[in-house]
Amino acid sequence: MPASNLLPDDRYFDPNPAQKEIALQLYERVKNLPLICPHGHVDPLLFADEKYRFPSPTKLLITPDHYIFRMLYSQGISLEEVGIPRLDGAPAVANDEEVWQTFADHFYLFRGTPTGMWLTQELHDVFGVTEKLTSQSAAAIYAQIDQRLQSPDFTPRRLYEQFNIEVLCTTDPATSDLSHHAAIRNSGWSGRIVPTFRPDAVVNLDAAGWRGQIDALSQVSGIDVGDYASFIQALEQRRAAFKEMGATATDHAAVTPFTERLSAQDADIILRRALGGEVADGDVKRFTGHMLMEMARMSSEDGLVMQLHPGSLRNHNPQLLEKFGPDMGADIPVATEFTHNLKPLLNEFGNHPNFRLILFMLDESTLSRELAPLAGHYPALRLGPPWWFFDSWNGMTRFRELVSETAGLYNTVGFNDDTRAFASIPARHDLARRVDANWIANLAVRHIIDMDDAADMIDAAAYGLVKAAYRL
Amino acid sequence: MPASNLLPDDRYFDPNPAQKEIALQLYERVKNLPLICPHGHVDPLLFADEKYRFPSPTKLLITPDHYIFRMLYSQGISLEEVGIPRLDGAPAVANDEEVWQTFADHFYLFRGTPTGMWLTQELHDVFGVTEKLTSQSAAAIYAQIDQRLQSPDFTPRRLYEQFNIEVLCTTDPATSDLSHHAAIRNSGWSGRIVPTFRPDAVVNLDAAGWRGQIDALSQVSGIDVGDYASFIQALEQRRAAFKEMGATATDHAAVTPFTERLSAQDADIILRRALGGEVADGDVKRFTGHMLMEMARMSSEDGLVMQLHPGSLRNHNPQLLEKFGPDMGADIPVATEFTHNLKPLLNEFGNHPNFRLILFMLDESTLSRELAPLAGHYPALRLGPPWWFFDSWNGMTRFRELVSETAGLYNTVGFNDDTRAFASIPARHDLARRVDANWIANLAVRHIIDMDDAADMIDAAAYGLVKAAYRL
Amino acid sequence: MPASNLLPDDRYFDPNPAQKEIALQLYERVKNLPLICPHGHVDPLLFADEKYRFPSPTKLLITPDHYIFRMLYSQGISLEEVGIPRLDGAPAVANDEEVWQTFADHFYLFRGTPTGMWLTQELHDVFGVTEKLTSQSAAAIYAQIDQRLQSPDFTPRRLYEQFNIEVLCTTDPATSDLSHHAAIRNSGWSGRIVPTFRPDAVVNLDAAGWRGQIDALSQVSGIDVGDYASFIQALEQRRAAFKEMGATATDHAAVTPFTERLSAQDADIILRRALGGEVADGDVKRFTGHMLMEMARMSSEDGLVMQLHPGSLRNHNPQLLEKFGPDMGADIPVATEFTHNLKPLLNEFGNHPNFRLILFMLDESTLSRELAPLAGHYPALRLGPPWWFFDSWNGMTRFRELVSETAGLYNTVGFNDDTRAFASIPARHDLARRVDANWIANLAVRHIIDMDDAADMIDAAAYGLVKAAYRL
Repeated sequence: MPASNLLPDDRYFDPNPAQKEIALQLYERVKNLPLICPHGHVDPLLFADEKYRFPSPTKLLITPDHYIFRMLYSQGISLEEVGIPRLDGAPAVANDEEVWQTFADHFYLFRGTPTGMWLTQELHDVFGVTEKLTSQSAAAIYAQIDQRLQSPDFTPRRLYEQFNIEVLCTTDPATSDLSHHAAIRNSGWSGRIVPTFRPDAVVNLDAAGWRGQIDALSQVSGIDVGDYASFIQALEQRRAAFKEMGATATDHAAVTPFTERLSAQDADIILRRALGGEVADGDVKRFTGHMLMEMARMSSEDGLVMQLHPGSLRNHNPQLLEKFGPDMGADIPVATEFTHNLKPLLNEFGNHPNFRLILFMLDESTLSRELAPLAGHYPALRLGPPWWFFDSWNGMTRFRELVSETAGLYNTVGFNDDTRAFASIPARHDLARRVDANWIANLAVRHIIDMDDAADMIDAAAYGLVKAAYRL
Repeated sequence: MPASNLLPDDRYFDPNPAQKEIALQLYERVKNLPLICPHGHVDPLLFADEKYRFPSPTKLLITPDHYIFRMLYSQGISLEEVGIPRLDGAPAVANDEEVWQTFADHFYLFRGTPTGMWLTQELHDVFGVTEKLTSQSAAAIYAQIDQRLQSPDFTPRRLYEQFNIEVLCTTDPATSDLSHHAAIRNSGWSGRIVPTFRPDAVVNLDAAGWRGQIDALSQVSGIDVGDYASFIQALEQRRAAFKEMGATATDHAAVTPFTERLSAQDADIILRRALGGEVADGDVKRFTGHMLMEMARMSSEDGLVMQLHPGSLRNHNPQLLEKFGPDMGADIPVATEFTHNLKPLLNEFGNHPNFRLILFMLDESTLSRELAPLAGHYPALRLGPPWWFFDSWNGMTRFRELVSETAGLYNTVGFNDDTRAFASIPARHDLARRVDANWIANLAVRHIIDMDDAADMIDAAAYGLVKAAYRL
Repeated sequence: MPASNLLPDDRYFDPNPAQKEIALQLYERVKNLPLICPHGHVDPLLFADEKYRFPSPTKLLITPDHYIFRMLYSQGISLEEVGIPRLDGAPAVANDEEVWQTFADHFYLFRGTPTGMWLTQELHDVFGVTEKLTSQSAAAIYAQIDQRLQSPDFTPRRLYEQFNIEVLCTTDPATSDLSHHAAIRNSGWSGRIVPTFRPDAVVNLDAAGWRGQIDALSQVSGIDVGDYASFIQALEQRRAAFKEMGATATDHAAVTPFTERLSAQDADIILRRALGGEVADGDVKRFTGHMLMEMARMSSEDGLVMQLHPGSLRNHNPQLLEKFGPDMGADIPVATEFTHNLKPLLNEFGNHPNFRLILFMLDESTLSRELAPLAGHYPALRLGPPWWFFDSWNGMTRFRELVSETAGLYNTVGFNDDTRAFASIPARHDLARRVDANWIANLAVRHIIDMDDAADMIDAAAYGLVKAAYRL
């Protein structure tokens, strides 16, 4: 798709002509490199079902995207008006075209936001939309997207190829039987879709429906989880199954990155208590902290790369949670402490040659203070790209500027799209590649690096680092 | 007043010619729009007394401005030398001309500070000073200002008109009888001066002279405050009186934004204890946290916009407090936590269609971590402009860059001058409009937005948002 | 040394031509001004021994520099491979040429880091290396440095003169007999090398080998330290001895800047307990907090400038500590609170005309929130330059942008090189002067200041402020 007025080739770069020329040159080097997608939330079903078809424009682009309806909600648009289904099954108040029109009427809210930038490029590159989305153009653009969705080649597998994706990692609960992944493998299709092991729902004792998840873990692993030893055994069984299916990484969420080594006996007492329906004060934090240690131990043995995402207080708005469920745009970050919290884990595994930990954050004050110094020291540690609210032009630029002088480029791991919105993946990677091209061009135009260094750095940032870091 | 060498038209903008050209174009759109002043500390007496005359240059510009004498004090100039009156009534050690000379001798301290920028523009635009303030020029400039102060048209009302102010909100204690506001109304003058309800002195149990304030509240409201029920009733009476006099907002300060719902019974016990002269450990924090909930409840009923300013530790320097009283430049910010602290208040009122909360901060690490995510979700919440130490070129620019990608422009509320220095108001608004023009121009020159978006955004930032947010 | 392709004259400055031209002009004013080095870790032995010769290139440039081997270690290079001696005396696994080759092979890790920038300039200016350091050029560059090290004029004293150093302050324990400093004085050499009083090892009760340090203090001071009174007396004796030898400052480290006034009786109880081998819970923090008060008291009396460096958690990696000892690149910052912690000290001494406190930080979130407001108020307080991880282009630039609008330029104290790497000193100062020239040029090109102000400011930033602040 050629550039249009909407999306000039040199967009987003610094306006200084000398810097922009270098940025363009660096961007040109990497813009067509294959996409490595090491962390995301695309449903593997899209690729397991060869005939999978996307739903309507609204159900593809609006309803599942909490970045979008969060902003609309903040300006007084109810979730019902955006077509979010209520848990009580009340009928929707708007049809797909109406929701799309509401979105277009409020698209001005996204001026200067990554959502606005991604969507404009996605509409342009994937759906051929060359007009700006406004109240006036909304209906025609809806029709154009809808038509494209109905074209025979508009399937996830064809898009995967067209997007030039090299590998796409999904995120899967520990209790998954990985049947979609097995189906993809068995289909003979050449795309590489691999699972990621995410055990939060069985590890965090206060996870919703934890007891049922443990039963599901027993069933899928074939190991009856009745105490700490069998729990560990079941997790190890699942990790092996994931690895067998191509996984190279695990993923873990926690409100804080607190870690602590419990004795096996203490861990057993807490787990048995929880299995019996009782969770004492402090058990959740201590058990999660201990299980992060155990996950690091397993990673140092099986080589799965460990990812940790701390710092989000989930479901800040109980009125919405009750009416619509989780993931409604009301997860709010909290201040995070890494230096003390991760000390036990890093002291035990941070020097281990086979262990790798990739850290994410939602608290930028930790970047120059804690994360860059830690990553610039421990061989096991790498810093993940700016997560969630920081997956943006300014967020990524600040990350580079705050981290690189202490940890360098080479203790970071390239870009993650971290999205369930499959059709937005190329736009997200393109934005990240532009950020890095611009940042490196700024170093080059100021003679902090020369052009040979600049070329090596953009290659690493766009492709090399992520592939190596995730052992893909 | 035409631009001079001291103040070129394109000052402050990024030096990149392409960005600067757009910035100038955007600035030209809005530079003459009326000023909306929704939050400040100008004394309503200035407008109630039609014949009000400003005092000397020193007493107008130096003595009341803690931004100025704070900096002089930090470099070893005593407050006595700046003409600040001592509480013990000791005679001043310097006359007005001497103080002005001392200030001019040290004006170099303000290089690169907003105070330096505002003052240069104020002297130029309001007093016709086209020369740089130095030790040498000090006396002549003093004389020039003094002469201007004595000209017949140099009254607050004439300046209000000349400054093109559309509305100016003062800040008034809950115990005010609003007699100055009544006098303004009754005078038939067309200027719009409205009060803002600020109940800190009766709500914060540890406020200096709290018991006397309660008596004053009883008297002005006509409701004898003897328990929690009558306290609430008196506050509601005052809110109604303020609203009657044109108020559209309330304002609240607290060291932390802690909120908690107490039972009416518990609130009553604490209040009665305090009325009896006893404040138990923790009472102050819990009662203030509860009263913020109550103020939100009242706002959701009467529609007054609630403003909250947390994070300042007042009177850090007891030696100065004892000698000169409060507000001597020794209020120092502390780290602030919003995500947990505001949860009770936002959970109860954050989804309410009639409630609006405008939050201010003195801890920039909260902007991208907590405030932008909260404002990008809760419909009741808006972010106030950068406050106090952050009302500056870099402070406002960082605010836009840290907030906008998550919360957008439209969950912010334009500019507040927040000043008691009436004659500095146009310079402060002008600086803010330049910041926004430059920030939006940067988005436009990089094609993140187009020029139509840019025009809409600068209009909103300079005028539309503040008017709507404060319901003015 | 003329500029080369590796190091163009206008390097590092903003690429905007107008800003760059001003930056160059400002830089030219100050680039040849003498270097004031008020805080560093160069061994005074280098100057005491007139015939001192530097060791090999590796032992000069790699082995003692934890900035360098920290980064190599983070990428899986063992400290043994970098030639760091093990505490157990195990033989080194690599000779000096091998270590240099390993470093050159991994020099790409330092792209965009201050270490990379300093080293390139040091090799160029001090050793005449005009080629980029790569795997291929490593051996030839090693030989070139080695040859230069053997030239007769390559002694610390000759370099001191060649570097145009005006004064160099070392850092010396309270227990030092200052014999190297005495030898320098007695030698009749004109260089000015002065000690700095650093009492951490005797003041912090949990310092390694504290009891032995107390004995050393007794011996060097001739005062038998057996209780609090004699402890204070011994410290005062040492301060007087340091001052006699030219010292103008003291230096203090602490994990937090907590301060608290203990009664002499309580201090005595804690100290006697510690002398008896017992340290109760909380004693360390309280005693350190009290001794900071005492150090401030002594400074207000003897006029030695007090420096405080809080916020580093030392020896985060016990595996390395055990094998190689401290200072192995595993000191990690923690969040720091100044407003409450320093209140007791500032309340007692912050207004004292003879007291000066220079504060350093490793937590940038405190700059605009706490440090600039404190320094913009208390006359005794100045802000030290960005420390350690923040002694970098971005770190120094952020410092100026975060601090100056509130505290101005004149509550900061110029640059410290803070290094034990003597030959790197000119490169470090040059980088800092470039940062300030660029920052001031940005203010000038935007007409926030005029060119007269700009000239005054760069003179102050490069030379005047540091000399005055440290009373040198």
